[in-house]
Amino acid sequence: MLFLVRMDVNLTVDMAVEEAAAIKAVEKAYSQDLQQKGKWPHICRVGGEYSNYSVFEAECNDEMHQMLSGLPLFPYMDISVTPRAKHPSDIN
Amino acid sequence: MLFLVRMDVNLTVDMAVEEAAAIKAVEKAYSQDLQQKGKWPHICRVGGEYSNYSVFEAECNDEMHQMLSGLPLFPYMDISVTPRAKHPSDIN
Amino acid sequence: MLFLVRMDVNLTVDMAVEEAAAIKAVEKAYSQDLQQKGKWPHICRVGGEYSNYSVFEAECNDEMHQMLSGLPLFPYMDISVTPRAKHPSDIN
Amino acid sequence: MLFLVRMDVNLTVDMAVEEAAAIKAVEKAYSQDLQQKGKWPHICRVGGEYSNYSVFEAECNDEMHQMLSGLPLFPYMDISVTPRAKHPSDIN
Amino acid sequence: MLFLVRMDVNLTVDMAVEEAAAIKAVEKAYSQDLQQKGKWPHICRVGGEYSNYSVFEAECNDEMHQMLSGLPLFPYMDISVTPRAKHPSDIN
Amino acid sequence: MLFLVRMDVNLTVDMAVEEAAAIKAVEKAYSQDLQQKGKWPHICRVGGEYSNYSVFEAECNDEMHQMLSGLPLFPYMDISVTPRAKHPSDIN
Amino acid sequence: MLFLVRMDVNLTVDMAVEEAAAIKAVEKAYSQDLQQKGKWPHICRVGGEYSNYSVFEAECNDEMHQMLSGLPLFPYMDISVTPRAKHPSDIN
Amino acid sequence: MLFLVRMDVNLTVDMAVEEAAAIKAVEKAYSQDLQQKGKWPHICRVGGEYSNYSVFEAECNDEMHQMLSGLPLFPYMDISVTPRAKHPSDIN
Amino acid sequence: MLFLVRMDVNLTVDMAVEEAAAIKAVEKAYSQDLQQKGKWPHICRVGGEYSNYSVFEAECNDEMHQMLSGLPLFPYMDISVTPRAKHPSDIN
Amino acid sequence: MLFLVRMDVNLTVDMAVEEAAAIKAVEKAYSQDLQQKGKWPHICRVGGEYSNYSVFEAECNDEMHQMLSGLPLFPYMDISVTPRAKHPSDIN
Repeated sequence: MLFLVRMDVNLTVDMAVEEAAAIKAVEKAYSQDLQQKGKWPHICRVGGEYSNYSVFEAECNDEMHQMLSGLPLFPYMDISVTPRAKHPSDIN
Repeated sequence: MLFLVRMDVNLTVDMAVEEAAAIKAVEKAYSQDLQQKGKWPHICRVGGEYSNYSVFEAECNDEMHQMLSGLPLFPYMDISVTPRAKHPSDIN
Repeated sequence: MLFLVRMDVNLTVDMAVEEAAAIKAVEKAYSQDLQQKGKWPHICRVGGEYSNYSVFEAECNDEMHQMLSGLPLFPYMDISVTPRAKHPSDIN
Repeated sequence: MLFLVRMDVNLTVDMAVEEAAAIKAVEKAYSQDLQQKGKWPHICRVGGEYSNYSVFEAECNDEMHQMLSGLPLFPYMDISVTPRAKHPSDIN
Repeated sequence: MLFLVRMDVNLTVDMAVEEAAAIKAVEKAYSQDLQQKGKWPHICRVGGEYSNYSVFEAECNDEMHQMLSGLPLFPYMDISVTPRAKHPSDIN
Repeated sequence: MLFLVRMDVNLTVDMAVEEAAAIKAVEKAYSQDLQQKGKWPHICRVGGEYSNYSVFEAECNDEMHQMLSGLPLFPYMDISVTPRAKHPSDIN
Repeated sequence: MLFLVRMDVNLTVDMAVEEAAAIKAVEKAYSQDLQQKGKWPHICRVGGEYSNYSVFEAECNDEMHQMLSGLPLFPYMDISVTPRAKHPSDIN
Repeated sequence: MLFLVRMDVNLTVDMAVEEAAAIKAVEKAYSQDLQQKGKWPHICRVGGEYSNYSVFEAECNDEMHQMLSGLPLFPYMDISVTPRAKHPSDIN
Repeated sequence: MLFLVRMDVNLTVDMAVEEAAAIKAVEKAYSQDLQQKGKWPHICRVGGEYSNYSVFEAECNDEMHQMLSGLPLFPYMDISVTPRAKHPSDIN
Repeated sequence: MLFLVRMDVNLTVDMAVEEAAAIKAVEKAYSQDLQQKGKWPHICRVGGEYSNYSVFEAECNDEMHQMLSGLPLFPYMDISVTPRAKHPSDIN
């Protein structure tokens, strides 16, 4: 079951450079681990913004929430989730 | 180059049933033709709404606009386009 | 898996009285059928508005979308869906 | 009498870890006490967000406000209240 | 128990003059009947708009909804309800 | 001449407890003084929020602004003012 | 006492040309009569829009509402009213 | 003096095809005439929408408003105007 | 050429009292200087808010921007500018 | 390929004067370098605001995002990007 997720990152500008670098490194590892497991099949930047659109694969809403609320940057992000359903024109 | 597109369909409720069926059939053919050509690689329903999120592949903004403004349902839709860029955490 | 759904009904005021009564009767039967099957466990009015908040039980996003897009009043409603997850303070 | 309540938590990211843990523990106890008394019959997470939808049972608006404004996290939350009324299609 | 209610009237401009006069007369009688019974203690115009703010007295949310949904102009109005609670600085 | 006023209080959560208590005490005295003079005939809480709806009686816009801008909590509030006019259905 | 008023005109595009011309002529006469009486001291177009900002002089909110609700175009306009007060830096 | 203008076209979908073609042809001629005179130096489509961003050159606000309100599609458009000023980093 | 300008002041509540008094005094002198030169012909308070509506007279957009961006409180304000044009019903 | 970009700058008012001057100088150099290379063909101030509208020329969305996310003021700005397409009335 797939969810489209938009994340807008609001890192405070006065965070120390090392601290920001550290949290971003943990975030990247967390993300790539889920990508490799097939749970986070797509991620892209929103052009010109510190935001992304992602697709998550989850068995249920609880698993989806667990993955998102476990994001190291979760406390710094606005997240909105759209449950995806099959489109009748989809050829796949 | 990829674009994320959201389309919200506002078919007037007093359109004749046959007219609506006809325009939807043309829309479906138009969509599946672009899907088969690889120009419209993803389409999904927004759960609970008469809307979709789609991904379009275009050489440039003009080609993207041409595909969208050519949609048979274009006069009945609100469309918003997000230019996608590569995300630094993307493993692909 | 549960979804919280808000529906705002926009029946056009110039719809014939009998037509409105007919579509509402079909809507009610559709709703009560799903309630009896346990797929629509809660429904309530928003005080002062022609709207409701409902809870749907579905195996997946596709089943949820199928139930909502099958509503007789679907063409006349604005619908927004919130995927529910378990809250850590929930005692149930 | 039932109220649907949405709470969005905005804990400041620079709050000390122990302070945050302490206030969340008090919040949880407060919530579970009201749940056990039957005054807070439902609580769920909004998937992907630090928010919840809850249902409160109160004799009157004053009791409802007292329960909500007494929440330990009240100063950190945006709260919106929807008075629920019986829906004519409800089978219960 | 008191509710603050805002009503914005959207009478279609192409409604026949007599029809509009008739529905407004019924609305006025309905309103004044509830005022005389003490259930609608305050009503005022929003300066410059075809809108009002009103205060309703009801035993519960269901009674409040019944009064509002029974308004002859209900199908032509946007209504929003605010449950009122006692303010600690109120001297009454 | 009456004005309906909504006030949303945004006290910063890191204000010292004594400071907050002090400013609230001054606010309460200021409010009750105007209530006793008949200039602030109504005040109520918005259920579930740190907000109020109030009615002010003033000779003119300047007097109204003077009363509101003199509120001890004025720098911490979002305020919106609605000029009230007589409603043709009002029985008073 | 002065009020700043914004009016956005929404004449339906399918109104007959003569009907539109007639209602605009009555509106103009109504406006110029109030201007000559000093009750409508300023009126200007919003550049690029079918809207105006105006200043009205009224003894009280009721007089202000009477002038605005009496506008021939009132049923076709969105109107918002801002009560003006004296600014401490004003040299007049 | 330059103005940035956004125009969103809302042609009603039930307008006859010939009528729509006729008004668009007049609009195009009007636009190209102003372009050739140097008063409308830039026009572009918003990708995926029936909208444009344009730059107008005018001696004053009145001339700008005259050009925009004279557009054949003016009654069918939402227009917003941004007065442009010189940017200190501009190398031209 | 005239511009209608709305300014919303957001002075941080923890600014030292003397600092706030100093910046407001400079602002007042700056404003009254422009008023005496006829460049800032109107200024009024928005009733109940720390905001003003003003009218500026400028030869061009650049002069308008220069006056506004030179305001001592400019970094603390949200400003929106409406280019004014002559209204056809204006008797002046 | 062209993009219209709006940038709203939110420099924190308590940033030290030298720090602000330094970051603005780097920003200016960065901008003028891209202007001279023809990648940033237009930039203008929004009258009365600390904002600009700019046009960027990029081969693809990735290049556009790289230029924008490389802005020294990027962490202090809200940015929105509009992909531009050719308008059928454009005479160029």
